[in-house]
Amino acid sequence: MSLDKRIESALLKALSPEALGECPPLLATALPYGVFPGGARIRPTILVSVALACGDDCPAITDAAAVALELMHCASLVHDDLPAFDNADIRRGKPSLHKAYNEPLAVLAGDSLLIRGFEVLADVGHVNSDRALKLISKLGQLSGARGGICAGQAWESETKVDLAAYHQAKTGALFIAATQMGAIAAGYEAEPWFDLGMRIGSAFQIADDLKDALMSAEAMGKPAGQDIANERPNAVKTMGIEGARKHLQDVLAGAIASIPSCPGEAKLAQMVQLYAHKIMDIPASAERG
Amino acid sequence: MSLDKRIESALLKALSPEALGECPPLLATALPYGVFPGGARIRPTILVSVALACGDDCPAITDAAAVALELMHCASLVHDDLPAFDNADIRRGKPSLHKAYNEPLAVLAGDSLLIRGFEVLADVGHVNSDRALKLISKLGQLSGARGGICAGQAWESETKVDLAAYHQAKTGALFIAATQMGAIAAGYEAEPWFDLGMRIGSAFQIADDLKDALMSAEAMGKPAGQDIANERPNAVKTMGIEGARKHLQDVLAGAIASIPSCPGEAKLAQMVQLYAHKIMDIPASAERG
Repeated sequence: MSLDKRIESALLKALSPEALGECPPLLATALPYGVFPGGARIRPTILVSVALACGDDCPAITDAAAVALELMHCASLVHDDLPAFDNADIRRGKPSLHKAYNEPLAVLAGDSLLIRGFEVLADVGHVNSDRALKLISKLGQLSGARGGICAGQAWESETKVDLAAYHQAKTGALFIAATQMGAIAAGYEAEPWFDLGMRIGSAFQIADDLKDALMSAEAMGKPAGQDIANERPNAVKTMGIEGARKHLQDVLAGAIASIPSCPGEAKLAQMVQLYAHKIMDIPASAERG
Repeated sequence: MSLDKRIESALLKALSPEALGECPPLLATALPYGVFPGGARIRPTILVSVALACGDDCPAITDAAAVALELMHCASLVHDDLPAFDNADIRRGKPSLHKAYNEPLAVLAGDSLLIRGFEVLADVGHVNSDRALKLISKLGQLSGARGGICAGQAWESETKVDLAAYHQAKTGALFIAATQMGAIAAGYEAEPWFDLGMRIGSAFQIADDLKDALMSAEAMGKPAGQDIANERPNAVKTMGIEGARKHLQDVLAGAIASIPSCPGEAKLAQMVQLYAHKIMDIPASAERG
C-alpha cells in the first residue's frame, strides 16, 4: 500500500459511521467534511516516513499516531477558519465548515476531531501501552497551551509577539510532533527528532508567508493576503521577499543535515529533498487574486 | 485532606505556571480563569467518592482522572458560553471567558483545557499504564462525538431531537464518566457503574430544567430562562413542573438503589442521599429575575 493510501485508509476508518456510533447525523457528516478530501497530508506523511525509517515494527501504532496528528491538524483548521479567527469562507477549495454547516457545529467538530485523535491513540494501547502513552503525551504537549498550536494561536492575542516563538508554536509544533511521534511509534527516542521537525516546520511557515504574499487566492484554495490583512507577524514582513527566500533555502538544507541516524536515513533524506523542491516551487512574482 | 481540598489542589497543580511552561501570558491566565473559582465540582467529587468506595489504591491516578474530567467540563462551559452557543455574558457570577478576554482566547482556552486533561492522564501512565489508557479512552468516548458531550451539544443543531439521547449525551455523559472513571481509577470494571452515573446525570438535568424555569438569574449566577429562550428540549416543557419534580424524585431513588457492590457502598449511598437532598432543595415557585 502506498503511503497516501495507508494514511487515507486509517483516517477513513477512524471516522467511519461504525467508529462514530451514536453521533447526531449532522455532526457525523461534519467530521469527515473537515477531514476529506485532505490537503497534502504532509504531517502524517512525515510521521509515517520517519516511522518507516526507524523500522515501523508496530504499524497499528504508527497508523494511530498519523490519524491522531492529522485529526488535530484538521481540528485546528476548522477552529482557525471561525469568524473570531480568520473568518475564512473557503478551505481547500470548498466552503469552510462553519459556512457549510454552522458555527456551533464547527466549534463542536473541532473539539470532536481532536478528542477522537486521543481516543484512537488510547485504543492501540493494547498493542504497546508505553508507546501509546508517550504518543498521547507528545501530542498533548505539541497541541495545547504549553508551546503547542493553541499557544501559537494565542500569541495572536498578545500585544508583544516573539516571532520565533509564535512560528514554532503555531506551525512548527505539529511538524515537531510529526517527526517525534514517528520516532516514538517505532520505538525510538523522540528527542533527537526535534530539530528535523522544527526545521521542516520553519520551512513550511516561510514558504506559506511567501505564498501568502505572492499568490492568488484561487491558486491557494483559501483567501490570500490573510496574514497581512490581520497584521500578524510574518517572515516576508521581517526579511523582505528575497531575504525570506534565502532563509528558506538555508532552513531546508539544515533539515536534511539534521536527520538522526536510523536504518532508513538515506531514504528519508531523499524524501525531505523531494519535498524541499516542492516547497521551493514558488513563483518569483504573481498577480494578486 | 478533605475531598474539596484534594480536588482543588490537583486542579491548581495541573494549571500552575510551572505546568503550563511556554504558554503565552494571556492564555496562561485565561486557563485558570475558566476553572477557578469553581462551581460545586460535582463531577470530580463523584469520581473521587466512587474511587474511595472502591479502595482508591492509586490516589495519583484518581487525582489525574478527577482533574481531566473537571477540565473537560470547564472546557465545555467555556465553549458553551460563546456567542454562537448560549451567548452568555456571565458564568459562575463573573464575566464569561470570551467577555473577560476575547472570543479567540475562549475557543483556544477550551481546546487547551481539554487537551491538558488528556495530558494529565498520560502523565500518570507510569503509575499504572492500563488504568491511564482506560481512563483516556473512557473520557474520549464520553466527551466526543460518539455519545459524549460534543454529541449532546450537536443535537441542538438537529431539526428532530430525541430528548433522552440529548440529555444523556449533553449532561449525562460526564456524570457517567464520573462514576465509571472513579471505578477505573481504583482498578474496578467500569460497566457496572454506568447506571449510577446516568441516573445522577438525569437528576441534575431535570433539576437544572426546574431551576431554569423557576429561579432568578441572580441566584443562579448565569442568565435564567436560557433553555426556553433558545427553544431547547427541556423536561419541564415535556412533563410540566410537577411532573418533572416527581420524575426527579424517582430518578434519585433509582440512583441510590443502583450503586454496585463495593467496600464503601454504604458511605457512597449516604453521599448520594446528601446530594439528593441538596438537589431537591428547589423553591416551589420563585420570581423571575
